[in-house]
Amino acid sequence: MKEFFNVETIEAVLAQVADFPVVDTEEIPLAECLGRVLAEEIASDVDIPDFNRSTMDGFAVRASSTFGASEANPAYLAVKGQISMGVRPDMTIGPGEVARIATGGMLPEGADSVIMVEHTDILDDTTIEAYRSVAPGQNTIEKGEDILKSEPALPRGRRIRPQEAGLIAACGRTMVTVFRRPMVGIISTGDEVVPVTQAPGQGQIRDINSHSLSGQVLEAGGVPVTFGIVKDSRDDLMERCQRALQTTDMVLISGGSSVGARDFTVEVLDALPDTGILVHGISISPGKPTILARSGHKPFWGLPGHAVSAMVVFAVVVRPFLDRLCGLSQATKKFPVQAVLNRNLASAQGRVDYVRVRLFESDGTVMADPILGKSGLIHTMVKADGLIAIGMNTEGLYQGSVVEVIPL
Amino acid sequence: MKEFFNVETIEAVLAQVADFPVVDTEEIPLAECLGRVLAEEIASDVDIPDFNRSTMDGFAVRASSTFGASEANPAYLAVKGQISMGVRPDMTIGPGEVARIATGGMLPEGADSVIMVEHTDILDDTTIEAYRSVAPGQNTIEKGEDILKSEPALPRGRRIRPQEAGLIAACGRTMVTVFRRPMVGIISTGDEVVPVTQAPGQGQIRDINSHSLSGQVLEAGGVPVTFGIVKDSRDDLMERCQRALQTTDMVLISGGSSVGARDFTVEVLDALPDTGILVHGISISPGKPTILARSGHKPFWGLPGHAVSAMVVFAVVVRPFLDRLCGLSQATKKFPVQAVLNRNLASAQGRVDYVRVRLFESDGTVMADPILGKSGLIHTMVKADGLIAIGMNTEGLYQGSVVEVIPL
Repeated sequence: MKEFFNVETIEAVLAQVADFPVVDTEEIPLAECLGRVLAEEIASDVDIPDFNRSTMDGFAVRASSTFGASEANPAYLAVKGQISMGVRPDMTIGPGEVARIATGGMLPEGADSVIMVEHTDILDDTTIEAYRSVAPGQNTIEKGEDILKSEPALPRGRRIRPQEAGLIAACGRTMVTVFRRPMVGIISTGDEVVPVTQAPGQGQIRDINSHSLSGQVLEAGGVPVTFGIVKDSRDDLMERCQRALQTTDMVLISGGSSVGARDFTVEVLDALPDTGILVHGISISPGKPTILARSGHKPFWGLPGHAVSAMVVFAVVVRPFLDRLCGLSQATKKFPVQAVLNRNLASAQGRVDYVRVRLFESDGTVMADPILGKSGLIHTMVKADGLIAIGMNTEGLYQGSVVEVIPL
Repeated sequence: MKEFFNVETIEAVLAQVADFPVVDTEEIPLAECLGRVLAEEIASDVDIPDFNRSTMDGFAVRASSTFGASEANPAYLAVKGQISMGVRPDMTIGPGEVARIATGGMLPEGADSVIMVEHTDILDDTTIEAYRSVAPGQNTIEKGEDILKSEPALPRGRRIRPQEAGLIAACGRTMVTVFRRPMVGIISTGDEVVPVTQAPGQGQIRDINSHSLSGQVLEAGGVPVTFGIVKDSRDDLMERCQRALQTTDMVLISGGSSVGARDFTVEVLDALPDTGILVHGISISPGKPTILARSGHKPFWGLPGHAVSAMVVFAVVVRPFLDRLCGLSQATKKFPVQAVLNRNLASAQGRVDYVRVRLFESDGTVMADPILGKSGLIHTMVKADGLIAIGMNTEGLYQGSVVEVIPL
């Protein structure tokens, strides 16, 4: 019943991310690109905008025609006409002249700015008075001011949010090259685990991990592929792992919390061709007995069986590997979330403790309230908004500490 | 060219959220429920777990048999056998007796705790010595400790994350009643707007808003339905709005930034049956000219044409209405994100200014760096991680202020 752990730090494990290759790419329609990761640099086929554009309703003007204008001393300007939307104006604006223009309209030749309608009085069809001056470029967007044709607009490796989708549209791209969504095989193990469709008998529990891990894979941009529940049998596990490795880019086995079951995972990994165990044991809690192997070029994980432990290990260890497979740039910013701890929190040294927290606001400060509870209790994750880490070399955190929150 | 705004505060607009009905419900498979909103309260058909369960590899024991045990004075305990996983143990543990148990195993009759294998020495097949004492319940999860059969496990109106999916599985639910995803019709307007497929001519720009708003609708859990671009024509707009209202739960018109085009929207709303304008103008920037109408029981929005303005109005005003349609409980916590402003930021009084910010970490503090730039420039949104609000009655924020960030 003894076993060896060659426990590694989480940093040492995460340092191996770059050893796994990114999945291949595919071309998809713009309308399907939300959440996907760009596999090409996006550039525009035109300057955006491709002309000097008004940002206000008003009058296109040569700025110098308004210099010195004030309420007391308005500038009298001649209206040369009205600029139609979406076409090139067929007029030229000279000194003392203006043309009526709407927001989004193209500035005519000779005009370098727009005076807002609110700062004018219309005297008659051909004359206005302007009682403010404008500077060159005022109330306009210059040709190329948003995106220059010659310059990269979006880098490879960027996740596409709504604004990136908008920008890609502006660049005239209807098809986009993105990284394929990695397929992630999910296997649950354990003689005590029954499918959700089955009423658990005495000593049995329903499979949670296939469902919670599938959700985490989906959120990360992967495609979960479930391979059901394997009883504690080396041969069955071997067969299922081989099937999963054939059709997916990464495999997650969860369960085998008991030492005997874990042994099967190790035996299977030892027997699989071109497969080696990279990590057996990580100095984190929960999640110490995690296994990371490499089968061919694919990551293969042995995760703890407890629902909370499996989710925590996914969030803090597996996710960076999946991000890598997805092609997400390392430079892609994470959105840092901070909170203030609302009580003292003790922790063991020699490992990183991940503690579930509920976030709430108190007097304008975001507070993190630790949710303590056994890692077999899924309801504690339902109460949680995120995780905080208590470092290896600390005995705990004091109330009032600022903590970084990993959203759940 | 003048128009009346009956400008309302954002609070007054958001107060009308509850006047719109939630969409109807549908039953979907568990595997498809991620991100959906529960339309029923979830309860389990069994206690979870349905038996006292070991959380460790070790020996099931009556705690009192270990009382007083220590390294110097171990307790000698008789091994009655091994407990198989997933079945009811066929033994009873009496005083001085133990049974070998793995993580997840069912405690036998008479045992109330588990002593970890690390705290024992195995003397022979029938005897161990235990050199720690355990308390009743130690290293076990009690029957019903995670979820009690009789109590609600998840409330209606909760968005389903991976952990909620896991819990629903544990409760034995393969089909889940959720709110239907609201269909959101999206119409772009403007003589200057051309589809992404078209090279913009002089004075023309490609349609950004259909794509960025579609992305925002998807992220919020809705289904975007695009109705293309309408030129500045009252009749075409009328026809397109009628089609959108027939098939969707909410309509977004963007563009018509120019006063004339906005007038068409108002005319169409006036002409549509059972339709009334609720809001024409909100004291926010960008986004002041926003229109909210009610057509039948459906919200109908006139959004600004500038790409940034339309996205900001969606994020701060439209989104809460869409959340309502989605059935999301008002009580559902938002994840508060705070940062420290890295420079002074001036603002006009009498309106709420929404400023794009980039977040970064500096010396362990999350900083918000304002991105200034015209609201016609989509690249400024691509640089942004979120928005911060500067309140109505303030002239600005000082460097060092703690600001709440609306993620983008």
